[in-house]
Amino acid sequence: MTTHAPRFVLFEPTHPGNVGAAARAIKTMGFHDLALVNPVGHPDPEARARSSGALDVLESARVAGTLADALDGCGFIVGASARHRRLGMPELDPRECAAEVLRACAARPAAIVFGPERAGLTNDELDLCQALVYIPANPAYSSLNLAAAVQLIAWELRAAQGVVLDTPPPESPPAGVEDMDLFYEHLERVLLASGFLDTGNPRNLMRRLRRLFNRSRLDQNELNILRGILTSLAPGSGRRDWTGPP
Amino acid sequence: MTTHAPRFVLFEPTHPGNVGAAARAIKTMGFHDLALVNPVGHPDPEARARSSGALDVLESARVAGTLADALDGCGFIVGASARHRRLGMPELDPRECAAEVLRACAARPAAIVFGPERAGLTNDELDLCQALVYIPANPAYSSLNLAAAVQLIAWELRAAQGVVLDTPPPESPPAGVEDMDLFYEHLERVLLASGFLDTGNPRNLMRRLRRLFNRSRLDQNELNILRGILTSLAPGSGRRDWTGPP
Repeated sequence: MTTHAPRFVLFEPTHPGNVGAAARAIKTMGFHDLALVNPVGHPDPEARARSSGALDVLESARVAGTLADALDGCGFIVGASARHRRLGMPELDPRECAAEVLRACAARPAAIVFGPERAGLTNDELDLCQALVYIPANPAYSSLNLAAAVQLIAWELRAAQGVVLDTPPPESPPAGVEDMDLFYEHLERVLLASGFLDTGNPRNLMRRLRRLFNRSRLDQNELNILRGILTSLAPGSGRRDWTGPP
Repeated sequence: MTTHAPRFVLFEPTHPGNVGAAARAIKTMGFHDLALVNPVGHPDPEARARSSGALDVLESARVAGTLADALDGCGFIVGASARHRRLGMPELDPRECAAEVLRACAARPAAIVFGPERAGLTNDELDLCQALVYIPANPAYSSLNLAAAVQLIAWELRAAQGVVLDTPPPESPPAGVEDMDLFYEHLERVLLASGFLDTGNPRNLMRRLRRLFNRSRLDQNELNILRGILTSLAPGSGRRDWTGPP
Protein backbone atom coordinates (compact mmCIF):
# COMPACT_ATOMS: atom_id res chain seq x y z
CA MET A 1 0.00 0.00 0.00
CA THR A 2 1.00 3.60 -0.39
CA THR A 3 2.66 5.52 2.38
CA HIS A 4 1.42 8.91 1.17
CA ALA A 5 -1.98 9.91 -0.14
CA PRO A 6 -2.22 11.34 -3.63
CA ARG A 7 -3.12 15.03 -3.80
CA PHE A 8 -5.87 16.32 -6.09
CA VAL A 9 -5.14 19.87 -7.20
CA LEU A 10 -7.79 22.04 -8.86
CA PHE A 11 -6.12 24.95 -10.61
CA GLU A 12 -8.31 28.07 -10.73
CA PRO A 13 -11.68 26.30 -10.78
CA THR A 14 -14.44 28.71 -11.76
CA HIS A 15 -17.55 26.80 -10.58
CA PRO A 16 -17.84 26.27 -6.82
CA GLY A 17 -20.33 23.45 -7.44
CA ASN A 18 -17.58 21.52 -9.21
CA VAL A 19 -15.23 22.03 -6.27
CA GLY A 20 -17.78 20.54 -3.90
CA ALA A 21 -18.53 17.66 -6.26
CA ALA A 22 -14.79 16.99 -6.62
CA ALA A 23 -14.43 16.81 -2.83
CA ARG A 24 -17.23 14.26 -2.77
CA ALA A 25 -15.66 12.26 -5.61
CA ILE A 26 -12.32 12.16 -3.81
CA LYS A 27 -13.79 11.04 -0.51
CA THR A 28 -15.95 8.30 -2.02
CA MET A 29 -12.76 6.77 -3.39
CA GLY A 30 -11.03 6.90 0.00
CA PHE A 31 -8.86 9.99 -0.54
CA HIS A 32 -8.83 13.33 1.28
CA ASP A 33 -5.98 15.56 0.06
CA LEU A 34 -7.53 18.39 -1.96
CA ALA A 35 -5.76 21.62 -2.93
CA LEU A 36 -7.32 24.62 -4.64
CA VAL A 37 -5.38 27.30 -6.52
CA ASN A 38 -7.21 30.64 -6.64
CA PRO A 39 -10.68 29.11 -6.54
CA VAL A 40 -13.53 31.42 -7.54
CA GLY A 41 -15.76 32.03 -4.53
CA HIS A 42 -14.36 29.70 -1.92
CA PRO A 43 -15.89 28.74 0.43
CA ASP A 44 -19.22 28.85 -1.34
CA PRO A 45 -22.65 27.51 -0.34
CA GLU A 46 -22.97 25.74 -3.68
CA ALA A 47 -19.68 23.94 -3.06
CA ARG A 48 -20.82 22.93 0.41
CA ALA A 49 -24.12 21.59 -0.93
CA ARG A 50 -22.49 19.58 -3.72
CA SER A 51 -19.83 18.17 -1.40
CA SER A 52 -22.63 16.31 0.42
CA GLY A 53 -21.00 14.08 3.04
CA ALA A 54 -17.50 15.24 2.06
CA LEU A 55 -17.71 18.63 3.71
CA ASP A 56 -14.66 17.71 5.80
CA VAL A 57 -12.56 17.26 2.66
CA LEU A 58 -13.83 20.55 1.24
CA GLU A 59 -13.20 22.49 4.45
CA SER A 60 -9.74 21.05 5.01
CA ALA A 61 -8.64 21.74 1.42
CA ARG A 62 -5.42 23.70 1.20
CA VAL A 63 -6.00 26.97 -0.65
CA ALA A 64 -2.99 28.38 -2.47
CA GLY A 65 -2.17 31.42 -4.56
CA THR A 66 0.17 29.61 -6.91
CA LEU A 67 0.36 26.10 -8.29
CA ALA A 68 3.85 25.71 -6.84
CA ASP A 69 2.47 26.40 -3.36
CA ALA A 70 -0.33 23.89 -3.86
CA LEU A 71 2.26 21.28 -4.84
CA ASP A 72 4.36 21.86 -1.74
CA GLY A 73 5.93 18.58 -0.63
CA CYS A 74 4.89 16.61 -3.70
CA GLY A 75 7.27 14.44 -5.67
CA PHE A 76 5.57 13.34 -8.86
CA ILE A 77 3.24 15.77 -10.65
CA VAL A 78 0.80 14.77 -13.37
CA GLY A 79 -1.21 17.32 -15.34
CA ALA A 80 -4.64 16.39 -16.65
CA SER A 81 -5.08 17.22 -20.31
CA ALA A 82 -8.24 17.04 -22.37
CA ARG A 83 -6.25 16.68 -25.55
CA HIS A 84 -2.99 15.31 -26.84
CA ARG A 85 -0.15 17.73 -26.52
CA ARG A 86 3.32 17.62 -27.95
CA LEU A 87 5.16 18.61 -24.85
CA GLY A 88 7.97 16.11 -24.65
CA MET A 89 6.59 14.45 -21.53
CA PRO A 90 5.01 11.05 -21.11
CA GLU A 91 1.28 10.89 -21.77
CA LEU A 92 -0.49 8.36 -19.58
CA ASP A 93 -3.98 6.96 -19.76
CA PRO A 94 -5.91 6.98 -16.47
CA ARG A 95 -4.92 3.40 -15.61
CA GLU A 96 -1.24 4.02 -16.26
CA CYS A 97 -1.51 7.28 -14.34
CA ALA A 98 -2.95 5.49 -11.32
CA ALA A 99 -0.16 2.93 -11.30
CA GLU A 100 2.56 5.58 -11.59
CA VAL A 101 1.01 7.86 -8.99
CA LEU A 102 0.68 5.07 -6.44
CA ARG A 103 4.25 3.95 -7.06
CA ALA A 104 5.48 7.52 -6.59
CA CYS A 105 3.41 7.92 -3.39
CA ALA A 106 5.69 5.43 -1.70
CA ALA A 107 8.28 8.23 -1.46
CA ARG A 108 6.30 11.49 -1.39
CA PRO A 109 2.75 12.60 -2.14
CA ALA A 110 2.14 12.61 -5.87
CA ALA A 111 -0.27 15.15 -7.33
CA ILE A 112 -2.75 15.22 -10.17
CA VAL A 113 -3.46 18.74 -11.40
CA PHE A 114 -6.79 19.61 -13.07
CA GLY A 115 -7.13 22.86 -15.01
CA PRO A 116 -9.99 25.38 -15.14
CA GLU A 117 -13.29 24.13 -16.57
CA ARG A 118 -13.14 25.94 -19.89
CA ALA A 119 -9.52 26.36 -20.71
CA GLY A 120 -7.58 23.52 -19.11
CA LEU A 121 -3.96 23.86 -18.05
CA THR A 122 -1.66 26.21 -19.93
CA ASN A 123 2.00 25.64 -20.61
CA ASP A 124 2.88 27.66 -17.51
CA GLU A 125 1.25 25.07 -15.26
CA LEU A 126 2.48 22.15 -17.33
CA ASP A 127 6.04 23.35 -16.81
CA LEU A 128 5.67 22.02 -13.26
CA CYS A 129 4.40 18.63 -14.40
CA GLN A 130 6.39 15.51 -15.18
CA ALA A 131 3.70 13.63 -17.03
CA LEU A 132 0.28 14.15 -18.55
CA VAL A 133 -2.82 12.10 -17.97
CA TYR A 134 -5.19 12.03 -20.90
CA ILE A 135 -8.67 10.54 -20.70
CA PRO A 136 -9.37 8.84 -24.03
CA ALA A 137 -12.89 10.22 -24.35
CA ASN A 138 -15.27 10.34 -27.30
CA PRO A 139 -13.36 12.28 -30.00
CA ALA A 140 -16.65 13.85 -31.07
CA TYR A 141 -17.33 15.16 -27.55
CA SER A 142 -14.53 14.86 -25.05
CA SER A 143 -15.56 17.53 -22.57
CA LEU A 144 -15.83 15.80 -19.21
CA ASN A 145 -17.17 17.83 -16.34
CA LEU A 146 -14.33 18.73 -13.94
CA ALA A 147 -15.72 16.71 -11.03
CA ALA A 148 -16.46 13.80 -13.38
CA ALA A 149 -12.81 13.77 -14.46
CA VAL A 150 -11.74 13.82 -10.81
CA GLN A 151 -14.12 10.93 -10.09
CA LEU A 152 -12.72 8.89 -12.96
CA ILE A 153 -9.07 9.44 -11.97
CA ALA A 154 -9.86 8.81 -8.29
CA TRP A 155 -11.65 5.58 -9.19
CA GLU A 156 -8.67 4.35 -11.16
CA LEU A 157 -6.43 5.12 -8.18
CA ARG A 158 -8.75 3.16 -5.92
CA ALA A 159 -8.91 0.24 -8.35
CA ALA A 160 -5.10 0.29 -8.67
CA GLN A 161 -4.81 0.00 -4.89
CA GLY A 162 -6.16 -3.47 -5.37
CA VAL A 163 -9.47 -2.76 -3.74
CA VAL A 164 -11.40 -5.91 -4.32
CA LEU A 165 -15.00 -6.76 -3.88
CA ASP A 166 -15.42 -7.87 -0.33
CA THR A 167 -18.41 -10.02 -1.11
CA PRO A 168 -20.24 -11.17 1.98
CA PRO A 169 -20.34 -14.94 2.45
CA PRO A 170 -23.41 -16.49 0.88
CA GLU A 171 -26.37 -17.21 3.11
CA SER A 172 -26.30 -20.78 1.94
CA PRO A 173 -23.33 -22.71 0.50
CA PRO A 174 -23.37 -23.72 -3.15
CA ALA A 175 -25.10 -26.98 -3.85
CA GLY A 176 -22.68 -29.88 -4.17
CA VAL A 177 -22.42 -31.92 -7.34
CA GLU A 178 -23.86 -35.04 -5.63
CA ASP A 179 -26.95 -33.12 -4.51
CA MET A 180 -27.33 -31.71 -7.99
CA ASP A 181 -27.27 -35.25 -9.38
CA LEU A 182 -29.94 -36.36 -6.92
CA PHE A 183 -32.00 -33.37 -8.01
CA TYR A 184 -31.69 -34.27 -11.69
CA GLU A 185 -32.67 -37.88 -10.95
CA HIS A 186 -35.66 -36.60 -9.03
CA LEU A 187 -36.60 -34.20 -11.81
CA GLU A 188 -36.33 -36.93 -14.44
CA ARG A 189 -38.53 -39.31 -12.43
CA VAL A 190 -41.19 -36.64 -12.00
CA LEU A 191 -41.14 -35.62 -15.65
CA LEU A 192 -41.30 -39.23 -16.83
CA ALA A 193 -44.20 -39.92 -14.50
CA SER A 194 -46.04 -36.85 -15.73
CA GLY A 195 -45.59 -37.90 -19.32
CA PHE A 196 -43.66 -34.72 -20.15
CA LEU A 197 -40.57 -36.75 -20.97
CA ASP A 198 -40.67 -39.49 -23.58
CA THR A 199 -39.85 -42.70 -21.69
CA GLY A 200 -37.83 -43.98 -24.63
CA ASN A 201 -35.43 -41.11 -24.97
CA PRO A 202 -35.36 -38.56 -22.18
CA ARG A 203 -31.70 -37.78 -22.70
CA ASN A 204 -31.70 -34.66 -24.87
CA LEU A 205 -34.31 -32.79 -22.94
CA MET A 206 -32.74 -33.72 -19.62
CA ARG A 207 -29.42 -32.46 -20.86
CA ARG A 208 -30.95 -29.09 -21.69
CA LEU A 209 -32.55 -28.92 -18.26
CA ARG A 210 -29.22 -29.79 -16.64
CA ARG A 211 -27.50 -27.00 -18.54
CA LEU A 212 -30.18 -24.53 -17.53
CA PHE A 213 -29.94 -25.35 -13.82
CA ASN A 214 -26.17 -25.77 -13.81
CA ARG A 215 -25.82 -22.31 -15.23
CA SER A 216 -27.74 -20.80 -12.35
CA ARG A 217 -25.25 -22.20 -9.82
CA LEU A 218 -27.84 -23.12 -7.22
CA ASP A 219 -27.13 -22.83 -3.54
CA GLN A 220 -28.23 -25.50 -1.07
CA ASN A 221 -31.37 -23.61 -0.02
CA GLU A 222 -32.49 -23.14 -3.59
CA LEU A 223 -31.91 -26.80 -4.30
CA ASN A 224 -34.01 -27.73 -1.28
CA ILE A 225 -36.79 -25.48 -2.56
CA LEU A 226 -36.70 -27.08 -6.00
CA ARG A 227 -36.80 -30.58 -4.56
CA GLY A 228 -39.72 -29.57 -2.39
CA ILE A 229 -41.51 -28.34 -5.51
CA LEU A 230 -40.81 -31.61 -7.33
CA THR A 231 -42.15 -33.58 -4.41
CA SER A 232 -45.27 -31.44 -4.29
CA LEU A 233 -45.82 -31.79 -8.03
CA ALA A 234 -45.12 -35.52 -8.37
CA PRO A 235 -48.23 -37.03 -9.97
CA GLY A 236 -50.24 -39.37 -7.79
CA SER A 237 -48.33 -41.28 -5.17
CA GLY A 238 -44.94 -40.75 -6.80
CA ARG A 239 -42.05 -42.11 -4.79
CA ARG A 240 -41.41 -39.58 -1.99
CA ASP A 241 -37.69 -39.93 -1.57
CA TRP A 242 -37.25 -36.47 -0.20
CA THR A 243 -39.32 -34.79 2.42
CA GLY A 244 -37.95 -31.34 3.03
CA PRO A 245 -34.93 -29.30 3.95
CA PRO A 246 -32.59 -30.97 6.43
CA MET B 1 -16.64 -4.36 -31.09
CA THR B 2 -20.21 -4.40 -29.88
CA THR B 3 -23.12 -4.56 -32.21
CA HIS B 4 -25.56 -2.84 -29.81
CA ALA B 5 -24.98 0.15 -27.58
CA PRO B 6 -25.45 -0.29 -23.85
CA ARG B 7 -28.44 1.53 -22.38
CA PHE B 8 -28.15 3.71 -19.29
CA VAL B 9 -31.40 3.71 -17.34
CA LEU B 10 -32.06 6.23 -14.57
CA PHE B 11 -34.91 5.00 -12.42
CA GLU B 12 -36.96 7.85 -10.89
CA PRO B 13 -34.14 10.39 -10.65
CA THR B 14 -35.13 13.29 -8.41
CA HIS B 15 -32.55 15.94 -9.42
CA PRO B 16 -32.76 17.19 -13.01
CA GLY B 17 -29.17 18.45 -12.74
CA ASN B 18 -28.02 14.87 -12.30
CA VAL B 19 -29.96 13.77 -15.37
CA GLY B 20 -28.20 16.39 -17.47
CA ALA B 21 -24.81 15.53 -16.01
CA ALA B 22 -25.46 11.83 -16.67
CA ALA B 23 -26.25 12.60 -20.32
CA ARG B 24 -22.94 14.45 -20.55
CA ALA B 25 -21.07 11.58 -18.87
CA ILE B 26 -22.55 9.05 -21.27
CA LYS B 27 -21.73 11.08 -24.37
CA THR B 28 -18.13 11.80 -23.34
CA MET B 29 -17.58 8.05 -23.21
CA GLY B 30 -19.05 7.54 -26.69
CA PHE B 31 -22.53 6.30 -25.73
CA HIS B 32 -25.95 7.76 -26.40
CA ASP B 33 -28.75 5.43 -25.21
CA LEU B 34 -30.32 7.05 -22.14
CA ALA B 35 -33.67 6.06 -20.63
CA LEU B 36 -35.50 7.82 -17.80
CA VAL B 37 -38.20 6.24 -15.67
CA ASN B 38 -40.58 8.82 -14.14
CA PRO B 39 -37.96 11.57 -13.95
CA VAL B 40 -38.83 14.51 -11.71
CA GLY B 41 -39.25 17.62 -13.84
CA HIS B 42 -38.18 16.48 -17.26
CA PRO B 43 -37.27 18.32 -19.39
CA ASP B 44 -35.80 20.85 -17.01
CA PRO B 45 -33.57 23.89 -17.62
CA GLU B 46 -31.11 22.65 -14.99
CA ALA B 47 -30.79 19.32 -16.81
CA ARG B 48 -30.23 21.15 -20.09
CA ALA B 49 -27.55 23.34 -18.55
CA ARG B 50 -25.68 20.46 -16.94
CA SER B 51 -25.86 18.34 -20.09
CA SER B 52 -23.57 20.91 -21.74
CA GLY B 53 -22.66 19.56 -25.20
CA ALA B 54 -24.78 16.43 -24.69
CA LEU B 55 -28.14 18.09 -25.14
CA ASP B 56 -28.84 15.69 -28.00
CA VAL B 57 -28.50 12.70 -25.68
CA LEU B 58 -30.74 14.35 -23.09
CA GLU B 59 -33.39 15.32 -25.62
CA SER B 60 -33.45 11.93 -27.31
CA ALA B 61 -33.69 10.04 -24.01
CA ARG B 62 -36.59 7.60 -23.90
CA VAL B 63 -38.95 8.50 -21.08
CA ALA B 64 -40.92 5.61 -19.60
CA GLY B 65 -43.51 5.11 -16.92
CA THR B 66 -42.20 1.74 -15.79
CA LEU B 67 -38.78 0.17 -15.60
CA ALA B 68 -39.98 -2.69 -17.81
CA ASP B 69 -40.86 -0.18 -20.54
CA ALA B 70 -37.47 1.51 -20.24
CA LEU B 71 -35.81 -1.89 -20.68
CA ASP B 72 -37.76 -2.68 -23.84
CA GLY B 73 -35.58 -4.72 -26.20
CA CYS B 74 -32.77 -5.26 -23.72
CA GLY B 75 -31.21 -8.64 -23.08
CA PHE B 76 -28.92 -8.39 -20.07
CA ILE B 77 -29.92 -6.13 -17.17
CA VAL B 78 -27.55 -5.01 -14.43
CA GLY B 79 -28.74 -3.07 -11.40
CA ALA B 80 -26.37 -0.62 -9.71
CA SER B 81 -26.19 -1.08 -5.98
CA ALA B 82 -24.45 1.11 -3.43
CA ARG B 83 -24.16 -1.78 -1.03
CA HIS B 84 -23.81 -5.51 -0.97
CA ARG B 85 -27.08 -7.31 -1.12
CA ARG B 86 -27.91 -10.93 -0.57
CA LEU B 87 -30.12 -11.37 -3.55
CA GLY B 88 -28.93 -14.57 -5.10
CA MET B 89 -27.58 -12.86 -8.18
CA PRO B 90 -24.00 -12.26 -9.28
CA GLU B 91 -22.40 -9.11 -7.90
CA LEU B 92 -19.93 -7.57 -10.34
CA ASP B 93 -17.37 -4.84 -9.84
CA PRO B 94 -17.40 -2.09 -12.49
CA ARG B 95 -14.70 -3.74 -14.57
CA GLU B 96 -16.43 -7.11 -14.57
CA CYS B 97 -19.71 -5.35 -15.31
CA ALA B 98 -18.21 -3.64 -18.35
CA ALA B 99 -16.88 -6.90 -19.75
CA GLU B 100 -20.20 -8.69 -19.24
CA VAL B 101 -22.28 -5.85 -20.64
CA LEU B 102 -20.17 -5.57 -23.78
CA ARG B 103 -20.31 -9.32 -24.30
CA ALA B 104 -24.09 -9.26 -23.93
CA CYS B 105 -24.39 -6.30 -26.33
CA ALA B 106 -23.29 -8.58 -29.15
CA ALA B 107 -26.82 -10.05 -29.08
CA ARG B 108 -29.09 -7.29 -27.72
CA PRO B 109 -28.68 -3.99 -25.93
CA ALA B 110 -27.66 -4.57 -22.32
CA ALA B 111 -28.82 -2.10 -19.69
CA ILE B 112 -27.38 -0.69 -16.50
CA VAL B 113 -30.08 0.59 -14.14
CA PHE B 114 -29.32 3.34 -11.62
CA GLY B 115 -31.72 4.00 -8.74
CA PRO B 116 -32.97 7.27 -7.24
CA GLU B 117 -30.36 9.48 -5.58
CA ARG B 118 -31.32 8.85 -1.99
CA ALA B 119 -32.83 5.41 -1.88
CA GLY B 120 -31.28 3.35 -4.65
CA LEU B 121 -33.10 0.49 -6.31
CA THR B 122 -35.66 -1.52 -4.35
CA ASN B 123 -36.30 -5.21 -4.67
CA ASP B 124 -39.12 -4.50 -7.11
CA GLU B 125 -36.67 -3.05 -9.64
CA LEU B 126 -34.00 -5.64 -8.88
CA ASP B 127 -36.48 -8.37 -9.75
CA LEU B 128 -35.92 -7.33 -13.37
CA CYS B 129 -32.12 -7.48 -13.07
CA GLN B 130 -29.84 -10.42 -13.73
CA ALA B 131 -26.76 -9.09 -11.99
CA LEU B 132 -25.69 -6.29 -9.70
CA VAL B 133 -22.84 -3.88 -10.19
CA TYR B 134 -21.30 -2.64 -6.99
CA ILE B 135 -18.75 0.16 -6.89
CA PRO B 136 -16.24 -0.72 -4.17
CA ALA B 137 -16.16 2.78 -2.69
CA ASN B 138 -14.80 4.07 0.61
CA PRO B 139 -16.66 2.08 3.28
CA ALA B 140 -16.69 5.19 5.46
CA TYR B 141 -18.39 7.25 2.73
CA SER B 142 -19.64 5.38 -0.26
CA SER B 143 -22.24 7.84 -1.55
CA LEU B 144 -21.28 8.62 -5.13
CA ASN B 145 -23.28 11.28 -6.90
CA LEU B 146 -25.62 9.69 -9.46
CA ALA B 147 -23.91 11.26 -12.48
CA ALA B 148 -20.50 10.38 -11.03
CA ALA B 149 -21.54 6.74 -10.80
CA VAL B 150 -22.76 6.88 -14.40
CA GLN B 151 -19.43 8.45 -15.43
CA LEU B 152 -17.46 5.70 -13.71
CA ILE B 153 -19.48 2.85 -15.23
CA ALA B 154 -19.41 4.50 -18.67
CA TRP B 155 -15.64 4.95 -18.44
CA GLU B 156 -15.16 1.28 -17.62
CA LEU B 157 -17.30 0.38 -20.63
CA ARG B 158 -15.19 2.62 -22.82
CA ALA B 159 -11.96 1.19 -21.43
CA ALA B 160 -13.29 -2.36 -21.92
CA GLN B 161 -13.94 -1.57 -25.58
CA GLY B 162 -10.19 -1.47 -25.89
CA VAL B 163 -10.01 2.23 -26.50
CA VAL B 164 -6.33 2.90 -26.49
CA LEU B 165 -4.38 6.08 -26.41
CA ASP B 166 -4.00 7.21 -29.96
CA THR B 167 -0.80 9.07 -29.26
CA PRO B 168 0.24 11.32 -32.12
CA PRO B 169 3.58 10.45 -33.66
CA PRO B 170 6.45 12.30 -32.04
CA GLU B 171 7.70 15.44 -33.72
CA SER B 172 11.16 13.96 -33.74
CA PRO B 173 12.13 10.26 -33.58
CA PRO B 174 13.82 8.92 -30.48
CA ALA B 175 17.57 9.32 -30.46
CA GLY B 176 19.38 6.16 -31.53
CA VAL B 177 21.80 4.38 -29.25
CA GLU B 178 24.78 5.25 -31.48
CA ASP B 179 23.95 8.95 -31.33
CA MET B 180 23.56 8.71 -27.58
CA ASP B 181 27.05 7.18 -27.37
CA LEU B 182 28.51 9.99 -29.46
CA PHE B 183 26.78 12.45 -27.13
CA TYR B 184 28.28 10.80 -24.04
CA GLU B 185 31.74 10.83 -25.61
CA HIS B 186 31.27 14.49 -26.44
CA LEU B 187 30.05 15.24 -22.92
CA GLU B 188 32.98 13.40 -21.35
CA ARG B 189 35.51 15.27 -23.50
CA VAL B 190 33.98 18.60 -22.60
CA LEU B 191 33.83 17.82 -18.88
CA LEU B 192 37.42 16.51 -18.87
CA ALA B 193 38.63 19.61 -20.68
CA SER B 194 36.79 21.85 -18.24
CA GLY B 195 38.34 20.06 -15.28
CA PHE B 196 34.94 19.06 -13.94
CA LEU B 197 35.80 15.39 -14.40
CA ASP B 198 38.86 13.87 -12.78
CA THR B 199 41.04 12.74 -15.70
CA GLY B 200 42.12 9.64 -13.80
CA ASN B 201 38.70 8.24 -13.04
CA PRO B 202 35.77 9.77 -14.85
CA ARG B 203 33.81 6.56 -14.83
CA ASN B 204 31.46 6.85 -11.85
CA LEU B 205 30.30 10.34 -12.55
CA MET B 206 29.85 9.61 -16.25
CA ARG B 207 27.75 6.60 -15.38
CA ARG B 208 25.44 8.76 -13.28
CA LEU B 209 25.13 11.29 -16.10
CA ARG B 210 24.36 8.48 -18.52
CA ARG B 211 21.61 7.20 -16.26
CA LEU B 212 20.14 10.68 -15.95
CA PHE B 213 20.02 11.31 -19.70
CA ASN B 214 19.00 7.76 -20.57
CA ARG B 215 16.03 8.06 -18.27
CA SER B 216 14.76 11.10 -20.11
CA ARG B 217 14.57 9.14 -23.40
CA LEU B 218 15.79 11.98 -25.59
CA ASP B 219 14.49 12.49 -29.06
CA GLN B 220 16.76 13.41 -31.95
CA ASN B 221 15.99 17.13 -31.74
CA GLU B 222 16.76 17.26 -28.05
CA LEU B 223 20.01 15.43 -28.61
CA ASN B 224 20.96 17.93 -31.28
CA ILE B 225 20.24 20.74 -28.86
CA LEU B 226 22.39 19.19 -26.15
CA ARG B 227 25.29 18.64 -28.53
CA GLY B 228 24.99 22.23 -29.68
CA ILE B 229 25.20 23.30 -26.05
CA LEU B 230 28.29 21.17 -25.47
CA THR B 231 29.96 22.64 -28.51
CA SER B 232 29.16 26.15 -27.36
CA LEU B 233 30.48 25.45 -23.88
CA ALA B 234 33.68 23.60 -24.82
CA PRO B 235 36.55 25.51 -23.15
CA GLY B 236 38.99 27.27 -25.46
CA SER B 237 39.53 25.71 -28.86
CA GLY B 238 38.17 22.31 -27.85
CA ARG B 239 37.91 19.87 -30.73
CA ARG B 240 34.77 20.83 -32.70
CA ASP B 241 33.65 17.47 -33.96
CA TRP B 242 30.05 18.52 -34.28
CA THR B 243 28.74 21.66 -35.82
CA GLY B 244 24.97 21.57 -35.65
CA PRO B 245 21.83 19.70 -36.53
CA PRO B 246 22.02 17.78 -39.79
